[in-house]
Amino acid sequence: MNLNLRIPVSLRIPGLRRKAPLTPTSPGAVPGTLVAPAEALPPRITVLAYGPEEFRETELATAGEVQQYLGSAAVVWVNVDGLGDTKTVQALGDMLHIHPLALEDVFNIRHRPKLEEYDQQLFVMTRMASLGERFEHEQLSMFVGSGYVLTFQERAGDCLKPVRTRLREKRGQLRNRGVDYLAYAILDAVVDSYFPVLEEYSERLEALQEEILTNPPTDTLARIQATRHDLLALRRSVWPQREFLSALARDETPLITERTRLYFRDAHDHAVRIVDLLDTYRDIGNGLSDLYLSSMSTRMNGVMKVLTIVATIFIPLTFIAGIYGMNFANMPELRWSFGYPLALGVMLVIGIGQLALFRRKGWLGSG
Amino acid sequence: MNLNLRIPVSLRIPGLRRKAPLTPTSPGAVPGTLVAPAEALPPRITVLAYGPEEFRETELATAGEVQQYLGSAAVVWVNVDGLGDTKTVQALGDMLHIHPLALEDVFNIRHRPKLEEYDQQLFVMTRMASLGERFEHEQLSMFVGSGYVLTFQERAGDCLKPVRTRLREKRGQLRNRGVDYLAYAILDAVVDSYFPVLEEYSERLEALQEEILTNPPTDTLARIQATRHDLLALRRSVWPQREFLSALARDETPLITERTRLYFRDAHDHAVRIVDLLDTYRDIGNGLSDLYLSSMSTRMNGVMKVLTIVATIFIPLTFIAGIYGMNFANMPELRWSFGYPLALGVMLVIGIGQLALFRRKGWLGSG
Amino acid sequence: MNLNLRIPVSLRIPGLRRKAPLTPTSPGAVPGTLVAPAEALPPRITVLAYGPEEFRETELATAGEVQQYLGSAAVVWVNVDGLGDTKTVQALGDMLHIHPLALEDVFNIRHRPKLEEYDQQLFVMTRMASLGERFEHEQLSMFVGSGYVLTFQERAGDCLKPVRTRLREKRGQLRNRGVDYLAYAILDAVVDSYFPVLEEYSERLEALQEEILTNPPTDTLARIQATRHDLLALRRSVWPQREFLSALARDETPLITERTRLYFRDAHDHAVRIVDLLDTYRDIGNGLSDLYLSSMSTRMNGVMKVLTIVATIFIPLTFIAGIYGMNFANMPELRWSFGYPLALGVMLVIGIGQLALFRRKGWLGSG
Amino acid sequence: MNLNLRIPVSLRIPGLRRKAPLTPTSPGAVPGTLVAPAEALPPRITVLAYGPEEFRETELATAGEVQQYLGSAAVVWVNVDGLGDTKTVQALGDMLHIHPLALEDVFNIRHRPKLEEYDQQLFVMTRMASLGERFEHEQLSMFVGSGYVLTFQERAGDCLKPVRTRLREKRGQLRNRGVDYLAYAILDAVVDSYFPVLEEYSERLEALQEEILTNPPTDTLARIQATRHDLLALRRSVWPQREFLSALARDETPLITERTRLYFRDAHDHAVRIVDLLDTYRDIGNGLSDLYLSSMSTRMNGVMKVLTIVATIFIPLTFIAGIYGMNFANMPELRWSFGYPLALGVMLVIGIGQLALFRRKGWLGSG
Amino acid sequence: MNLNLRIPVSLRIPGLRRKAPLTPTSPGAVPGTLVAPAEALPPRITVLAYGPEEFRETELATAGEVQQYLGSAAVVWVNVDGLGDTKTVQALGDMLHIHPLALEDVFNIRHRPKLEEYDQQLFVMTRMASLGERFEHEQLSMFVGSGYVLTFQERAGDCLKPVRTRLREKRGQLRNRGVDYLAYAILDAVVDSYFPVLEEYSERLEALQEEILTNPPTDTLARIQATRHDLLALRRSVWPQREFLSALARDETPLITERTRLYFRDAHDHAVRIVDLLDTYRDIGNGLSDLYLSSMSTRMNGVMKVLTIVATIFIPLTFIAGIYGMNFANMPELRWSFGYPLALGVMLVIGIGQLALFRRKGWLGSG
Repeated sequence: MNLNLRIPVSLRIPGLRRKAPLTPTSPGAVPGTLVAPAEALPPRITVLAYGPEEFRETELATAGEVQQYLGSAAVVWVNVDGLGDTKTVQALGDMLHIHPLALEDVFNIRHRPKLEEYDQQLFVMTRMASLGERFEHEQLSMFVGSGYVLTFQERAGDCLKPVRTRLREKRGQLRNRGVDYLAYAILDAVVDSYFPVLEEYSERLEALQEEILTNPPTDTLARIQATRHDLLALRRSVWPQREFLSALARDETPLITERTRLYFRDAHDHAVRIVDLLDTYRDIGNGLSDLYLSSMSTRMNGVMKVLTIVATIFIPLTFIAGIYGMNFANMPELRWSFGYPLALGVMLVIGIGQLALFRRKGWLGSG
Repeated sequence: MNLNLRIPVSLRIPGLRRKAPLTPTSPGAVPGTLVAPAEALPPRITVLAYGPEEFRETELATAGEVQQYLGSAAVVWVNVDGLGDTKTVQALGDMLHIHPLALEDVFNIRHRPKLEEYDQQLFVMTRMASLGERFEHEQLSMFVGSGYVLTFQERAGDCLKPVRTRLREKRGQLRNRGVDYLAYAILDAVVDSYFPVLEEYSERLEALQEEILTNPPTDTLARIQATRHDLLALRRSVWPQREFLSALARDETPLITERTRLYFRDAHDHAVRIVDLLDTYRDIGNGLSDLYLSSMSTRMNGVMKVLTIVATIFIPLTFIAGIYGMNFANMPELRWSFGYPLALGVMLVIGIGQLALFRRKGWLGSG
Repeated sequence: MNLNLRIPVSLRIPGLRRKAPLTPTSPGAVPGTLVAPAEALPPRITVLAYGPEEFRETELATAGEVQQYLGSAAVVWVNVDGLGDTKTVQALGDMLHIHPLALEDVFNIRHRPKLEEYDQQLFVMTRMASLGERFEHEQLSMFVGSGYVLTFQERAGDCLKPVRTRLREKRGQLRNRGVDYLAYAILDAVVDSYFPVLEEYSERLEALQEEILTNPPTDTLARIQATRHDLLALRRSVWPQREFLSALARDETPLITERTRLYFRDAHDHAVRIVDLLDTYRDIGNGLSDLYLSSMSTRMNGVMKVLTIVATIFIPLTFIAGIYGMNFANMPELRWSFGYPLALGVMLVIGIGQLALFRRKGWLGSG
Repeated sequence: MNLNLRIPVSLRIPGLRRKAPLTPTSPGAVPGTLVAPAEALPPRITVLAYGPEEFRETELATAGEVQQYLGSAAVVWVNVDGLGDTKTVQALGDMLHIHPLALEDVFNIRHRPKLEEYDQQLFVMTRMASLGERFEHEQLSMFVGSGYVLTFQERAGDCLKPVRTRLREKRGQLRNRGVDYLAYAILDAVVDSYFPVLEEYSERLEALQEEILTNPPTDTLARIQATRHDLLALRRSVWPQREFLSALARDETPLITERTRLYFRDAHDHAVRIVDLLDTYRDIGNGLSDLYLSSMSTRMNGVMKVLTIVATIFIPLTFIAGIYGMNFANMPELRWSFGYPLALGVMLVIGIGQLALFRRKGWLGSG
Repeated sequence: MNLNLRIPVSLRIPGLRRKAPLTPTSPGAVPGTLVAPAEALPPRITVLAYGPEEFRETELATAGEVQQYLGSAAVVWVNVDGLGDTKTVQALGDMLHIHPLALEDVFNIRHRPKLEEYDQQLFVMTRMASLGERFEHEQLSMFVGSGYVLTFQERAGDCLKPVRTRLREKRGQLRNRGVDYLAYAILDAVVDSYFPVLEEYSERLEALQEEILTNPPTDTLARIQATRHDLLALRRSVWPQREFLSALARDETPLITERTRLYFRDAHDHAVRIVDLLDTYRDIGNGLSDLYLSSMSTRMNGVMKVLTIVATIFIPLTFIAGIYGMNFANMPELRWSFGYPLALGVMLVIGIGQLALFRRKGWLGSG
């Protein structure tokens, strides 16, 4: 059926047994130990150096080359796709005086979003959402320092593509503003990446409701729950983003100008809306579980009614037939000439009487 | 049945797949990009300029004509019905120095209500409620600046009509007060638009309870849930209004005078009551789900009892008849002259005995 | 049955479709518009003017006569029973400089309890509880100014009677204290009016539990839910009272002396206890729903067991009887002289075997 | 069965219709009115006057004699067992300048625990727990003033016995410290009185689980709920104690020295643990309800399966036997010599075929 | 089955009837009384004295020998495995001026994690997690003073082994930092000990889901609940750790340097993630309960459908056979030569008709 195609077949519980273990390092390891995730891609370093009047975009071979770009333009955006090489990250960390704990977190791809202030940088970990068979997370780590923004992604995703395009084509104010506005543009793109995912899930909920009200297959409840778990996982991703966006919109930080703070307020607004929508969807998801269970029980009632009606009508009639099937020598009715039609008549009357009774009880309706 | 007419037939989940996408702009777009909603109406601009002794009401052809009214009276209320033309909105925004992010929000007709303070304006987004087959939202955006109020509506609604009438007919204090009191009058009318909707939903809940206790059709649970989803959606609309009304009643803002603040406190009170009522209604809605499921199960029990009584009485009797229907050559009872009446008598005794047992178990009652 | 008499027959959902509409005024009306509730009684004005050594109690014909009492004694308590005449209220409001929004609220008999501070008065709206078939609310509005207390009631209730008696008979400290202590005495009497209602509901819950464990009629669940809705409505009444009593016990208000504040703390304590008890009762009410549903299902299981036992025993026996009722020409057993007793014996063995099996499965017990 | 002895037979809902009415005084009574509870015992006054080097313990005949002990030693502990005589309490209240509202509360034996600060005393109401068939509350009121501690108990309980023993035998620091440490010792003994009750309830929960998994009697759910209500009632007793112990450990009060505050922090810790344990137990209690309902439904499924298997196998066979029991003149099979064994063979094949089908469906297992 | 091996067979409710009673001391005991837990091991004292350039590790025979190590190196870490001897603990407490209440808590092995500040020490109680058949707690008490860290464990566990190895092998910064960093390293190792436990439980949840969707044994629900109780118990262990780590990362304490505070922030982050994961797992656990109950009911429906189909088809047919088994003398059909085939034909038509009806109702599908 067409509806089913929209709905995930895999009932894998989200958040369990994912590609990465819960922490990259083992308990008790030296803090600041860098361990690359198991299937991480090799890093690809790109630099975008720009100002109101200039724009350079280069792909670098080694982390060391970044040094020459720093300070060469109003804003330098260093982006690393792929977390497969700890040395590259260590080199960038040393170059920019990044705290070892923050560097360790870059590799912790299952970490919850957070904002941390260090002496020389703002450190933001966040998560982009995209849609596969189910929604998928990709971690984005960002360091905002004076004159540069450094971002790490698990793989080259397209969620930041519109930001790069705006830089290249000098659309909007992006080229005229500082690192804080670039940080805003990136975080805003990350938050907005949840909207298409939400649209998809709203359609899945509609499809599930349709399915329940028509003809639910046996795995419906499992799929409803998978959807609810996804919504919960989405909420857990967005909630901390909402929190740190609120902090960025409100708090005094030397790196964020007053003027840009209004924009963070706008991004915070979006995060609030997403959380609101997710709460609504989860409530609807809970309602679908109840609806499914109730529709199951309605079907069961229908089955039982048919059994009851048929059995209740025929069991007494069969009994009467049984009586006149007895072989007693002395059964006067058997010899009456109108005995047989009389017996049939009695049976008919009993059957019709029962039907009438059931109709009065409302069992013959469709309910 | 008459009752059903009151209750929505459509079981569409509210908040899903609505006319507008979740955001007008695509993720990563330049902030401040204006995109008109898909089916937005062309704008209609009206100006009401008034003071204690003057009152002018005009419909304007272009946004540019607004300029000549600004400052011409104590209060100038510019209202735009229809969001179909971004240029009109942009022109008004430029004229009144409105922040691009606020302008963008005007077109975001699925945004949650909020209050934002900008340098030169208070910006309020809120939602009016009205009743169709189900309740409907309409967004109202309002900018309150010094000497003017600018409002945007999706379409010409009648929720603000009483406010205009009070201005025209000089009823109450409205003509004697400033822009803050006009803002209050508008927001108060918006909040009060929820009361008739609540009255309607309270009647729907009563009708649903009546229906459950008499003869529920199969879609009852779906309709209960649709009602609960509506109540939740209403709550999500009112809750943020409650919050910003509380802020307006409490905080020091140069645009709101001390005297008007008491009125905002009153409007806040109304919002609190609406949230309270919605909580009560939702609790009642949850109770109706339980009641429905229990009444289903009571009906099922009734069905099962009939089956059990009939089957349990006749199955042993049929067995006895079966015994004397056997064709063994040597069955002395068959030849007894009182064999047949004896067999009938035994059956009668067994049947009556079972009936007595069931009566003692309370199965023959109506419970 | 006697128990049932205690329990409300009417299953009307509380808070829905009550005598009064949700707001007396229509949305968008001029704030401060006075509209008397539909079936309001005509007002009856009484004045109690008292001090340590004096006490006068008079019924007045018109609101205007109140003027001459103001200031004539240490404390003047003006009480108005019946909200049927807006002019009387307006006259009193003008005389005492009451804010129009507060006056409007006096007529809003479905308003939630609240405390508001105005320049010249404290304004308290609260609700007395009494018992009819179900509990009933009556609104009490009180203005506490310097030297006077003004109260409005929907009808002449007896919840304040003990306060009047204490004044008349000079019992306790009431005559020696100021308006703040009178306000306390009134609010304390209002809060304490909930205790008898709670006692009644605790007995209803006991009766319902008794009923469920013995022989529940079909409307039990509806009555449990009606009780739960009542408890919720009671909680919604008391909760805001708790909040403003806490404010009165804590905050610095020129109208409340330090000494009286201890008394408000005591009244606050009572409100806290009532909320606590209501939470306990609601929890018990929820437990009763579960208990009812479980007892339904236990009964159902009992029914099914009887059916299963009877059917399972007799169906195979009837089959054997059916075999020897076949009319095949060549059935050697039929001609054996011990064929019939053998068949009966086999049936007996099978029947007893099944009974033994069921006993081992524990189906023959009472569970 | 042995298990049942541990579990309360009485299913009385805790907190409902207890020995005492909800308030001793009627609504609207003069505040400070003393009314002894209905079945209160006559008072027994004991005085313990002690310091590092002295210890006297006396039973007094009248409240007046207390006067001569006050100030005669470092610490004077006056204890009154039995609330049957308001005059005794009034006399003590007058002697120690106790506020009438606090005195009234002493008789309010269903009051929730609280701490109140008066000018000359700390007033603490708390509740000791003990175990009867179910847990029982006893109220303890304590006034801590400069140089004395005054306690009121409903009856002579043994929860404070260890404290008296420590005083008599000069164990620990109690004799060397002031009234604040005595107050701590008393409140600590009260809090610790909940631990044995908790141990008992943890065993009841285990016993209930055991019972559910083996052979639950029909009143199991009612007993689970009675246990849950008890746990809730316990929580409501401990929660306010936790709150005032936290206040005593934290706030600056002239009566509590810095050194003793550490001890109150310890008592607060205990209260926190008790609340934590109660939350865990309540969660387990909720799980038991679900487990019970599920085990009921599993049993029901077992019953239904047996019915289905027996009925489904024999109904078709009986039909075949019925066919060859028909008396048509022209039924050729009846005259075949191998007709009867053939019919039996067909029946056998059908029966075995069905059994095989059920085994494949997994219905013959134990599930 | 292989799956089951992963899942605890024991359904013991966690937190109930554990090895230790709820408190080691009896209610009312002298505070500061030391009582060793019932099965506590004899103590084993080890001292690690280290600085950037030195490292000594010794096992001591008596607590008195500790004195000579104090102050002999930059950091002295005294570790005691085994709480079987109160004298050893008392001696250490006296030597380091530890408050008697804190010493008492060391033996209270069921205490919830907490942080307390004393004049000369920070006192931390926390819990390590490890995996047996179910997860296990072990208590760790730690005193951090100037120049030393004193830890108590129930038994020699390996959760702190990596910390010791880092000290011995001079890995990371541990040897170069002070007591605050050692305290961090220990608490971080404790928090991280929860990650492997979480991984295990995530696999158990997956295994349970798999089991439910294939062929759940009867104890599935009990095992789901045991898992949920474990997750709750884990949460109760981690939550207070989260709280005190947040306090250590935020508050000004002379013992914790600014530089180390960043590390506590990191450990706090880990605790937050663990709580987050536990909340997700608990939600999934709740979903599994629902899934199980629904799958039970689906199976039941399948059983009922088979019964209904077989019974409903054959009951009417058997009735017809019964009619022609009657022995009336005058039954013309019996003598028709095509009577028998006609009867069989009618039965066939009825049977096929019913099958068609059921197929149309969708009862013959797999749903």
